[in-house]
Parts: sequence; C-alpha cells; structure tokens
Amino acid sequence: MSFPFKQVDVFTNKPFKGNPVAVINCMDTTANTVLSDRQLQDIATWTNLSETTFLFPPRDPANDYYLRIFTPTSELPFAGHPTVGSCKAFMEFTNRDQADCTIKQECGVGVVQLTVKDGKSSFKAEQTIVESIEQDMIAQYTESLGVTPISTPKLLNVGPKWVVYLVSSGKECYDANPDMSKLAEICRVNNHTGIILGGWKQDNEYEMRAFAPVINVPEDPVCGSGALSFIRFLQEENQYQETTEIAITQGGRVNRDGRLHCQIIHHPDGEKSYHVGGDALTVVEGTIRTQ
Amino acid sequence: MSFPFKQVDVFTNKPFKGNPVAVINCMDTTANTVLSDRQLQDIATWTNLSETTFLFPPRDPANDYYLRIFTPTSELPFAGHPTVGSCKAFMEFTNRDQADCTIKQECGVGVVQLTVKDGKSSFKAEQTIVESIEQDMIAQYTESLGVTPISTPKLLNVGPKWVVYLVSSGKECYDANPDMSKLAEICRVNNHTGIILGGWKQDNEYEMRAFAPVINVPEDPVCGSGALSFIRFLQEENQYQETTEIAITQGGRVNRDGRLHCQIIHHPDGEKSYHVGGDALTVVEGTIRTQ
Repeated sequence: MSFPFKQVDVFTNKPFKGNPVAVINCMDTTANTVLSDRQLQDIATWTNLSETTFLFPPRDPANDYYLRIFTPTSELPFAGHPTVGSCKAFMEFTNRDQADCTIKQECGVGVVQLTVKDGKSSFKAEQTIVESIEQDMIAQYTESLGVTPISTPKLLNVGPKWVVYLVSSGKECYDANPDMSKLAEICRVNNHTGIILGGWKQDNEYEMRAFAPVINVPEDPVCGSGALSFIRFLQEENQYQETTEIAITQGGRVNRDGRLHCQIIHHPDGEKSYHVGGDALTVVEGTIRTQ
Repeated sequence: MSFPFKQVDVFTNKPFKGNPVAVINCMDTTANTVLSDRQLQDIATWTNLSETTFLFPPRDPANDYYLRIFTPTSELPFAGHPTVGSCKAFMEFTNRDQADCTIKQECGVGVVQLTVKDGKSSFKAEQTIVESIEQDMIAQYTESLGVTPISTPKLLNVGPKWVVYLVSSGKECYDANPDMSKLAEICRVNNHTGIILGGWKQDNEYEMRAFAPVINVPEDPVCGSGALSFIRFLQEENQYQETTEIAITQGGRVNRDGRLHCQIIHHPDGEKSYHVGGDALTVVEGTIRTQ
C-alpha cells in the first residue's frame, strides 16, 4: 500500500533553506487501507523531521481537510510551519496551486483559517496569551542567553510556550551564543518550550531565532509559532494602532534563509488578529510505502 | 533541476522498522547540473537523517558507482547502513533488483565490496582494529551504562571508534538505561564514537544496542559499524575456528525491529574477513528538486 508523499520546504522559496515538513496524502477514501494511530506515529518517528503531517478528508464538509500533526515522539494539536507546508501540499494535491483562496483546516485545536495569496499561505492564530514572568526567572534566562534585553521579556502561550526576548539589533540577535545546557534546564524546570530572540533590522523587519533545547531542538531553523509569539509581543511593546505588516528573517546561523510574512490586523470592531505565513516549496515528491 | 530520490529503510523488511537513509541518484552524466559540495551538505542537513548519500558514476570503470555519504554536519569516508541502503537503491535504479551479484562501491575509504544475494546486501569490512582500554576508563563507562560486563570491554576502531561491552543476556542488554549525559562526557574526553552493548540470546543470535550521545545520536536504531565491531569482538572472545554466521537484533527500545546478518569468513589462507548485511526496503520513492 502506498500514499502520495511530499516533503515541503516552508518559509522559503529556495530548496533546503527553509523548515521541512513531510506531508502524506490520505484524502483518498477509496483506499482500502486505513493507517492506525500507531502507524502514523511510526512514520513520523522514522522521517526524523520535526513534524510529519497527514491530510484526511474533513469531518465537517464546510472545511477543506483534517490535518494530523506528529513529531517523532507525539501528536500535536497545532503547529505553524507544518500548517503552512501542509496547506501548500493540499493545494498541489488538489491541483489548485495557482488559486488565491481561503482554506479551513481542521486540526487538534479546532478549525484554523488560512489565506492563500500569490502562492504564499498564512494562518490566523487561535490563541496568543501574554503573561508576565518573574524577575528571578528572567535573570536566569538572560544569563544563559548572554544577551541584554531592551525591554521586559514575557511569556507567550500560543500552544507552545515561548519566552520572548527583544534585543537592541538584528546583529545582536544573530550573534548570540546561548548556553544550551543551562537553557534546557531552565526551560525544563519552568515547563517552557524555549526562547524566541528578536532584534530590529530596519523598517518593520526583524531578525529572529528560536531555541528549544529541552525538546531536542537546540535551534529551530524557521519557526511559525515563534514568529506568532514575537509579533504578539511587538504589539504589546509598540501598541500599533492600525494594521501592521512585519517581516521576519530567520535561520542564517543554521545555514537557512527563512522569511516569515506576518500581519497584525486591526478590525473595525476594535479586535486584533495575528497572522503568520510565507512561501513554501515542494522539494521531494513521490510516494510512501506503508506495507 | 531534479534528481531521482529514494528513502530506503535498512536492516529490516518492514517499513519504518529499520534505519533510514536518503539516496539521491546523480549517475546520469547527461544532467546539465552538477551539485556543488555545499549543495550536497545542504541537502543532508535538510533531510535531517543520520545519513544522506549521493550515487555518482564510478571514477574507475571496474567499479559500479562512487558513493558520497553526508551526515547533517559533515562528510563521512564510510558508513554501514548507508552503504547497504545505497546498494539497494543502486540495484533498483539500474533495474537489477532481482540479481545476485557482487558490487564494488567507491567511497572515501577506497573500494568496498558488497555481496547481493536473495535481496540482501552485505559489505566486507576494510578495517577492524581491536585495542585494549584502561581499567579507569572501563570503570567510568561501566558506571554510566549501569551494566555488568561479563568480559573485558575493548575498543574497536572500524572507522568509527566503538567501545564494545558484552553483558550476560539479550535481556540485560535490552533493559539497560544508560546515563546519556555522563556517557557523552566520557566519549568526548576519550574521542570515542560511543558504546556498543550486546548480550547473547540463543545459538549464534545476539541482542545489540548502540549509544552515541556525543554525536547527538543517543541511541542509533540499527547500526552497521556497531554490528561489525561487535562480531569482531566476538571473534576475539570466542576464537571461532571456522566460518561463523551471527544474527543480531537491534532497535526494540526505540520502536524498531532491525535484523543484521553477519558473517566471519575463515579463508583457506588463514585470513579472516568480516561481513555485515541485511534486508533493505525502499519506502519513499520519487524525485528531489534542487533549484
């Protein structure tokens, strides 16, 4: 038994310069094999990518597909770059690659809305909770990072829990050399996913890095939930009064060249919504054999 | 530009139960793109597999192909499971899947000989150097492993440098829970790749595990160079006087089901040669886009 397979590079338009996700197309309900939860996990363990996803038919026909997202060790209710990459794969699998449209993705957190425009996909955040953290904890993190924050770091709970640091410049961000073993230990004790470090470059453009050694990802090359946390933090810092676009570059220190296109939309009713997206590119295309 | 691509599962006949290697077919010399060394490394970083290989035409026409082997961070002169998997891919790419034959693989260490029989491939070791290690060092390793060796551990230099431990049974091997941070530190200080732990199951069948936290592989699921080190150690221990076949099972603790078929061949001239092989199965098949 085999299924259509794509390995998509996310937040880049150059092969091997983004964050990869493996996407397996299980939309064909006439297939006479159903993969068990154990098989889904086995496949994700085997690919060894940070995430492997499976496209299923939507449970509610008002939506476009149902996505299950697995790391090598567990299933996730949501994840950023896998959502952008899986949407790209869905568009290609259904021959809608050129179309501008909106997509409704069922996944563990509910229905996530995506906007596809000019080949780029962006998702709308379901949850962005800003929390303050204690001075003691900040002191520990600051020492392990070896940087000087220019404002008070905050905890962003967007599903993953990122502690967000803003430093004086994109260069200070790029040059940072955190002590990974110290950082892992502090994250473990506090039950945090990791650190998002950002610095201003020019206009509304920032350099960003994501460190999550406690989940065996010392540096995530290009991080969707990290970018979401970072723009939510910037809204808190800068108190933007109107819809604002923010460009984030990430991954240079780990030989990538990621670009995230983010939006903070101010709606007429006074509400704000947070959007993260970018390019995605299918690099490996073929089939995966499961028996 | 795209190249034929396979992701092969090695030392198993069940998808997702072996050790994967990505194999990219660059044998077509009419392709008007040549990949640079930097691109080869970028691809191997991006797949995130322990090894990614590239098949090129042999430099000496007496051989079958020239193989380059990359980890996510560097190029290797030789590696076991990537050799077995790349040979399988070569046989399929050249439509020789059913044939029994011998294959000569050019790679960093020279020409490696493989035997293909009944769909299984095995390679002949180029180097198996047995060295004794100091009691102090053994005491440190033993403490970090939490096991009781039943004979004196030795250092096996087969390219990678494995310290080989034999314990009382396959069960003791399977049940071991090493202290990975201690183990990583001892390996780092002594410039060793890691530990091979083996225990007897029945007849000439052993359970084996491979720990290499210092190279970011806490437990390698199924390890060709480890099996080579282990059978060379067993020859030293057991002083086999004739050609002996040894079966090794590996990977149960990391949700794999690897099987290595090994041979110690005693030649008429008194020389011995060491061979490691097994099944391999193409799981992902398609193309990889490089531009």
